[in-house]
Parts: sequence; structure tokens; C-alpha cells
Amino acid sequence: MSKIFVDACFGKETPYTPVWMMRQAGRYLPEYMKVRAEAGNFLNLCHDPKKACEVTLQPVDIVGVDAAILFSDILVIPDEMGMDLEFVKGEGPKFKDPIKTEADIDRLIGGEEAASKLTYVYDTIKLIKEQLADDKALIGFAGAPWTLATYMIEGEGTKTYNICKKMMYSDPELLHKILAKITEVVKLYMEKQIEAGIDVVQIFDSWAAAIEPSKYDEFSWKYMVEIADYLKERYPHIPIIMFPKGIPAFLDKIYGNFEVFGVDWSTPMELAREKLGDKYVLQGNMEPCRLYSKEATTESVEALQSVMGGKRHIFNLGHGILPDVPVENAKHFISECHRVSKK
Amino acid sequence: MSKIFVDACFGKETPYTPVWMMRQAGRYLPEYMKVRAEAGNFLNLCHDPKKACEVTLQPVDIVGVDAAILFSDILVIPDEMGMDLEFVKGEGPKFKDPIKTEADIDRLIGGEEAASKLTYVYDTIKLIKEQLADDKALIGFAGAPWTLATYMIEGEGTKTYNICKKMMYSDPELLHKILAKITEVVKLYMEKQIEAGIDVVQIFDSWAAAIEPSKYDEFSWKYMVEIADYLKERYPHIPIIMFPKGIPAFLDKIYGNFEVFGVDWSTPMELAREKLGDKYVLQGNMEPCRLYSKEATTESVEALQSVMGGKRHIFNLGHGILPDVPVENAKHFISECHRVSKK
Repeated sequence: MSKIFVDACFGKETPYTPVWMMRQAGRYLPEYMKVRAEAGNFLNLCHDPKKACEVTLQPVDIVGVDAAILFSDILVIPDEMGMDLEFVKGEGPKFKDPIKTEADIDRLIGGEEAASKLTYVYDTIKLIKEQLADDKALIGFAGAPWTLATYMIEGEGTKTYNICKKMMYSDPELLHKILAKITEVVKLYMEKQIEAGIDVVQIFDSWAAAIEPSKYDEFSWKYMVEIADYLKERYPHIPIIMFPKGIPAFLDKIYGNFEVFGVDWSTPMELAREKLGDKYVLQGNMEPCRLYSKEATTESVEALQSVMGGKRHIFNLGHGILPDVPVENAKHFISECHRVSKK
Repeated sequence: MSKIFVDACFGKETPYTPVWMMRQAGRYLPEYMKVRAEAGNFLNLCHDPKKACEVTLQPVDIVGVDAAILFSDILVIPDEMGMDLEFVKGEGPKFKDPIKTEADIDRLIGGEEAASKLTYVYDTIKLIKEQLADDKALIGFAGAPWTLATYMIEGEGTKTYNICKKMMYSDPELLHKILAKITEVVKLYMEKQIEAGIDVVQIFDSWAAAIEPSKYDEFSWKYMVEIADYLKERYPHIPIIMFPKGIPAFLDKIYGNFEVFGVDWSTPMELAREKLGDKYVLQGNMEPCRLYSKEATTESVEALQSVMGGKRHIFNLGHGILPDVPVENAKHFISECHRVSKK
């Protein structure tokens, strides 16, 4: 059975423009909160294929999105590379021993060995594929090497990225060594996700905007392109979505062999269409806080439809849905996307 | 005596391109840390004209910048509007009773009454002007109404701005009422700073990037322009610098009666010059983390000089200097700016 979401990723004409929401399997859903409470904590939920499968499917059933996205976290990779991930309540993810030296990098578990440890992810994917309707797509994902490296070097989330950036400007070779080692794991991790059954790949560069424009290719984009090339060569039928958040200043520098460019909400869709619309299908980009108001949601969906005209477009938010959004407003967003784009 | 910095703001030819650094009176200077320790805490330092004057002058003497910037904090305004500012160690600024309703807004102290309470700022300015060399300029500043409103509504710094944005999309009139009340105070506050002796005004919209492009004018820029118009009409000889951080996506929407546009580091200087260089003198924009390396600093200063050609340009960082930058690297930045631009 043909999947409208996969067709749309390849730029084929579809009966309506498909839609999903970043962080759609998340805290705004009471059903998610229940499963998460049963799991005890966020990391347990990632490690439990049955529960991770359950929360992956919830937004498909409850809000009616056209694609499920694997429930997991981008930081399972550094965790399985030996960095011992912890989620501290109210503070977010932490790594006790951040990467500081070449010896720290050498100690990290790399390549096939690290990717093979993520069996709970591949098991989750197999379970989801058994239960997901044939006409819905399953998106697998990974964090971009740069985004992962920021956590591995800073040891936690950061506002200033000053430790990473000190390395970027004072010892760029060390940073490249970390990025290269992560890239190898991400390639194999995504390959194994594909082998387990995902239909689409998304690479999230959540902290793209932390790098100055003239250095972005060198420290992030080229590694993302390397991953895309690796996958595209082996799995040309699996579309790839690249989402570098917050880089409207240099869209004309974007290149590479992938199908969909994820547009965040800081980038006007007109600008993205002008700079990238011929080369890539565009995904996005309603400002997630518009979900607080049905009127503001409809206004944005209609504006996006008017810019994109239902062509080479996938509706989405320009970043993740927030926990305090009413479920009925999320449903309204999905149904409005379908309404305005129906042919 | 003519001030090279003021001349440069008006686009006049100068013997070299002047330079200052955002947060130049700050924690990277041991001399600053000493005065701050004597003051007990950050807010005491803002309230003590003698000490605030001392730290304002330090970077002029120590690193050789061409302009001093008043040592203060943008949040003294909401504090004097009756919101009771507190700096919680390790957590940043807090307001106990954030603005939620129309009644909360009505209770705020407004206009002349609030602006008159900031005497410690005006006293600081007078002291600085007695001691600052005649050829150096003193920059006064305020936060943009939107940036101030985010703290007043959220009660503290925020990653998601979700309370403000819920208001923006669900009850925009309430948000406009807050913004208008803040705007009135900022106008009078800047007027009193000018009367006390500042040579240049800078309006910081630190959280400009939190607003989606299509709403930026409505909720922030138009209020900044209103402040600029008010001051320009009364004090045409005082140049105004506008610094909306992180809006490279829509520079072509920028308008208004002011002299200098502050370019943050996420915006390539080439793009800023192309979109705004004819209308405004451009200030900026070295990525502040380049200060960790002298080589990376020189590379950026030379690149900026090559883009701007020493015309209609003021050197600066693209955001504030970080506390762990070595002082000698800051000095290197200043001397490199002078070296490359000397005529």
C-alpha cells in the first residue's frame, strides 16, 4: 500500500498534504503521561520496546497525524558509546564525564559495537511496524553529530556552548575527531533502523544555530551530508529529512543528496521556498505556540498553504509541540492541514 | 573635542573604525570581579553610582575600547515599575509576581513616576562623564519593550517563552497593553539618560529571535521605532543603535529613524551590508567565542574589515563577551580592529 507521507517526501502528487508534529509523542497527551509514569522515567521508556511502541502510536490514533515518529531520544547514542546518560529531574540530560581530550575520545565505544547495543530501538521499530496501519509511515531519527557532540563535550545542555566553541576555535582537529567518531555510529544506527523497518529518516540538528554561518558546513553540515550519502547509496527508496534548526541566514549554502528540508519557525516559508524549494521538498513550519489558539493555528495553516500551494510540502510545526498545548488544539491543527490541502 | 565613536555612528569618515564590546564591563575582568565582590551582589552594583562608574570605565582603561557603556541592567526598569527584581544565585533574575492580568498591568508604576525613580542610573552617568576622556563616548541603553516584557510575564528567563506566546496568540491586546506601558517608561528613561550626559543610545532586543518573523514588527520592532522617533525628534545629535538579536531572516523588513544597526553573529555581515548597509551604519559582529583564540580573532577581524572596507562600520562582538575569556585576548581584539582599519 502506498504511503502518502513517503510519496510526499519524494515530491509526488498526493490527495492532500500530509502532516506530523515534532514531539508529537509527548507530554501534551494524557495517554503518554500515563505510560511514562508506569515506566518510572524517561530513559526507562526509551529502553522498553513495548511502552515506546505504545507512545509512538498514540498520536496517530489520537490526533490523526500521517506519520509516526519512533519514540526515543537522540542521546541514546552517546549513552551506548559509553557516556552513561542520566536525566536529572528539572535539569535535563547529564553526562558525568564530558569529553575533554583525545584519550576520552579513544575510550568511547565506536562504530558497529555502539550501534549494535541499541537493540531496544530496533525492537521498538519492529513492534511498531506490526501495529502501524499500512498507509502510515514510520519516521526513524538521529541527532546530528554536532548536536550530539555539544552534549558530550559540555556534559549537559548549555546556553553558551562555550566549552565546545573553545575547542572549535582553539583545537578544531579534536572536535573533528569527536564528530567523525559520532558520524560513524549514526550511519550504522540509521542503517539498522532502516533494516528494522523505518520508512523515513530524519536527522535533527537541534543546535545548528549555535555555530556561526561561516563555520556551519565544516563542523556540522558536512557530517550530516556524509550520513545522508551513506544511506542514500544503500537505501535510495528511504527518504531523508534534514532539519538544521535556525539557519535562515544561509539557506543558499545548503547542499546534499536528500529529499526533504525541515524548515524551523524562525525561517519564513517564502524564503525557504525561494532558496530551496526547487531542490528539496519543504517540511514545516508553524510556530508551535500558535497551538495555544485555534484561530492563530488556522491563520498559519492557511498562510502556509497559500505559500506552498500544496506542492512539494509536508506540514509540520517549526519545532516541538509544548507540553501545555490542549490536545483538541493539536487535533485542530492536523485537521486544518488536511482541510486546506485536500484536492 | 570630536568623538570618533559618535562620528562613526553618523557615518562620517574616521581615522580608524572604532570598537567596543557588548558586556565589556564584565566578569572576564579581575578588576570588575573585585568591585562586584565589594558590592556584595550584582544589583547593589547597579544601585551604587560610584562603583557602577568604576566598572564602566575599566574596559576603556584596560582593554582600550573607543566607547564606554553604562554599567547597569535592563531589568532596573521593571524593578522600578514595582516588580521587585531579585537575582537568584545560579538561576538569574526573578520577579515574584509576574504580570498575568489587566489588573496586574494597572498596578505597575508607569511613565514619569517610574523613570524618575532611576536616579542612581542618572547619577552614575554624571559621575562617568566627569571621568571619561573627552574623545571617548558613553553609551546609555535600555532593553526593548518586548525583551523586558518576556521577563515581566514569565517571571524569569525562559527557554520557550510559552507564557508570553500564549498571550501573544490568545490575548494580543493584553500583551500590547504591557508593551505600551513599558515603552512609555523606556522613552522617558532614555531621555533622562541623555539629559544626564550619555552620547549614544543603544536599545537591546535580546529576545528578538523568540518572535516568529511575521509577528516581529507588531510585537517588538514598532515599539522600538516609537522610542527612536521620540528621542530623534528631541535629540537629533544623539545617535541611536538598534540591536535586535537573531533576525537574519527578515532584515529587509527593518525600518525606522535611527543611525546604527547592531548585527549579531548569526547574521553574516555580507547579508547585513547588502540589506541594510545603505540605510544604516552597521555594528558588529565577531562571534564572541572567537575570543578564546587570538588566531580566530584576527581571522574574523580581517574578514569583517574586508567586507565593510572601513566604511559605515563599528567593530563589536556579535553578542556579549563571556566570563572565561582571557583579558589579553580581549585586548588583542581591540588592537586588531584598530590595526586593520587605520587609514
